Order: sequence, then C-alpha cells, then structure tokens
Amino acid sequence: MINFEALFKVSYGLYIVCSGDNNKGNGFISNTVFQVTSEPPRFASCCNKGNYTAELIKKHGAYSVSVLDTNVSPEIVGTFGYKSGRDTDKMTGLNIKYGGTGVPIVLNSAIAFLEFKVVQTVDVGTHLMFIGDLINAEIIDDTKDPLTYLYYRQVRKGVAPKNAPTYIDKSKLESKSKDISFKKFKCPACGYIYDESTELIRFKKLPDDWVCPVCGSDKSDFFEVDNK
Amino acid sequence: MINFEALFKVSYGLYIVCSGDNNKGNGFISNTVFQVTSEPPRFASCCNKGNYTAELIKKHGAYSVSVLDTNVSPEIVGTFGYKSGRDTDKMTGLNIKYGGTGVPIVLNSAIAFLEFKVVQTVDVGTHLMFIGDLINAEIIDDTKDPLTYLYYRQVRKGVAPKNAPTYIDKSKLESKSKDISFKKFKCPACGYIYDESTELIRFKKLPDDWVCPVCGSDKSDFFEVDNK
Repeated sequence: MINFEALFKVSYGLYIVCSGDNNKGNGFISNTVFQVTSEPPRFASCCNKGNYTAELIKKHGAYSVSVLDTNVSPEIVGTFGYKSGRDTDKMTGLNIKYGGTGVPIVLNSAIAFLEFKVVQTVDVGTHLMFIGDLINAEIIDDTKDPLTYLYYRQVRKGVAPKNAPTYIDKSKLESKSKDISFKKFKCPACGYIYDESTELIRFKKLPDDWVCPVCGSDKSDFFEVDNK
Repeated sequence: MINFEALFKVSYGLYIVCSGDNNKGNGFISNTVFQVTSEPPRFASCCNKGNYTAELIKKHGAYSVSVLDTNVSPEIVGTFGYKSGRDTDKMTGLNIKYGGTGVPIVLNSAIAFLEFKVVQTVDVGTHLMFIGDLINAEIIDDTKDPLTYLYYRQVRKGVAPKNAPTYIDKSKLESKSKDISFKKFKCPACGYIYDESTELIRFKKLPDDWVCPVCGSDKSDFFEVDNK
C-alpha cells in the first residue's frame, strides 16, 4: 500500500541549479541536491531529461547550486520554477557570478552557493542524476535561513512543478473532506491552484493586492477552474 | 575556494535505513534519502561501503526508510547512529514491522515509513547509492514533525558520525574566535564533543542530570580532551 502523503515527510531544501556560460546560461529550481560522499566532497543533483538545463550540464560538465533564502522573491520562483529557458533568457537583470568552471551562479535570493564539476551521470528514468565534485563553496549571507520544501509548501503555499522528482498528482493523495460549495482558482502564469476547501478563505475575500504565492501574478489574473 | 560552512546550508532529513530479514536485520541513521523520479516514485539512498547495512541491502535487494520524529529518543540515535550491527543486534527490544520484501522497518521514534525494492546500485566512491522503487509508504503519526539535520545540529546538538556523507572534519571549518580558557569534553559512547567555546556554558555548570544529546550517556561519563 502506498500512501503518497507519507512522501511529504521526506525533507528537502530548495535550490537554483544552473549551467551554461556567460553567453547562454540557464537554471531551474530543484529540491534534489544532496551530498553523497565526504571524501572527496561529492554531491548529486537530479534534473528532468527534458529540462534545458540538463542539456547545458551535459555540454559544460559543470553546474552551480544556489541555496535559496526562506524569503525568496516570487519573481525568482516564477522565473526558475515555472518557465523554460528555451523561450526566455532567465539570467536577464539578475545578479550573476561566473564560477571557476564558467557556469553562472544566481546570487539573488541566495544565502550560499556551491559549484560542481560533473564526474558521473546516472540515468534514473525520467531524470538524470549529475554527480559532481565540489570545487567552490561560499556563504553569501549567514544571517538568513535556507528555504526548505516544507516551508515552501506550508508557509509560502507553493506546489512542485510537474517535472520535479517530488511532483505528486493530487488525485493520488488520500481524499480530504470536500465541500462542493468550495471553488478553485488557477494562476494562468504558473498553474498554481488556490483551493478554498483547504485554504478555508473564499477567494473573493482575499485582499485585492493578494498575489500568487508561487510566481507573484495578480489576483485579478486568476480564473475559476472545475472543482475536481 | 571551498568554505565548508556553506555545506551546512544544504537541507536534509534524518532517517533509519534498514535491511535484512526477521532472522538478521540491521539499520543505520542516514541523512541522504531523496526522491529521484515521480513516475514511478523512485528514491535514492547512500550508504557507506563499510556499513553492515550496505551488505544486507546488496543481499536482499530491498530497504526500508523510517522518517524520524524531531523528538527521536537518544537511545535510537545512539543505537543506529553510533554502533555497528556486526557487534550487536540493533533490533532487540524495538517495535519492528516486516515489509512486503521482508525487510525490518523500525517504528520507534518514526512518523512515517517507506519501503523500496532496489533497481540500480551506483558506486559513488566511498559510498554506494541504492536506487529503489517505492512499494510501500505509510504514515505512523501525522501530528509530529520530521527531524531535520539542521534541527538535530542546532536544537539537539548532534554531530554527523565519521562515515556519513555529510561528515565534516572540524579542522576544515573556518576558525571561530577561540578562547584557550574554554575546554572540551568528550562522550565515551558516541564521540560527541561538548565544546564550551560554542556552547558558552561551562561543562561543570551543566546540571548533574544532563545527558549526552546524541546517545544519552551520563554527564559523569564525559572526559576532558585536548582543546584543539
């Protein structure tokens, strides 16, 4: 028996994983960055095979990891969590540092960063796991806390995008008590669903300056969706 | 440049990873359990090659993961974090469930558990990474929070054992202000060091019923060590 709610008990941080160079760089928000050995300091990071960043990591053999701050800006989440770098240059207007391998490192909303040289690539199915040796690690702001996936879901009310390793189809979750008088509203930019049955505040009662907790879109942009 | 303090900004949960059967089972405390794909739900877990549990996972092709509670008992930490199953039967006296693959699942101090069938084993150096498909997931207690490595370090004052992927030799950390009048005291059971220079409370000022935050050994068992 699989209760998908149990998967939410596994803890993750949230990071921007980047690759490329100063000509063309790209990155995405990842929750799967973890150390696999201490001697040498070696990490693994998973990336959906269809992600543009996966192509760049394969090409450049290196990637950076920016550890996000709990107060990460909605613009950073919107850009790196819900857009593809094939269509847009995500680095425009951001504070970018280039590491020893030449990969871009996003400094906005970051409290620390790490840089890796890929030593092994493992095919784990829908995702590639890039195993990399640490070549650079710096703290940007030691006074702030790292963003965790739990905090992002509980406090920031965020949801994992569809190509994340931890994406869970809501139909697989155990059914909560549902009142058909509750409605759902969708963010057109990032797909975030505001669900009155779990939020317990009517969407129309939210203040006019309320914005999408994921990508910062205006309340007025939301539209009602089928309550399924 | 590598600032090892930056590695502490990466977030992890803490788990007991077990394998074996009802005749001989073993487990260890791990911080590297993470989902790598959502379709199918597939996870990875790292295990030091020298760990007895690594032998058992290779033999049985399956493992369980118990998600620890923030209030994990010191006995559980002491048994699974700092002892080898080659010398002792860690399962004695515990509340153990046997999963669909026959592996033991520790229910003490756990809020949820997951069970995996190994589909791939990756050699990442000092550690093996066992990639497993989820076959069982249950919540034990939904009212409690999962233990994180940050909480364990900051609140429970715990340290990673030497064979953990995240073990950091303290000499690699950036030097903090050191006052040679501060002393250090070591736990003989688990090796935990009480460092007056970071705790800012004299060891002798601690109450007599103070116990090792890692394994629960008595204050009177501690001994002074060189202040290096």
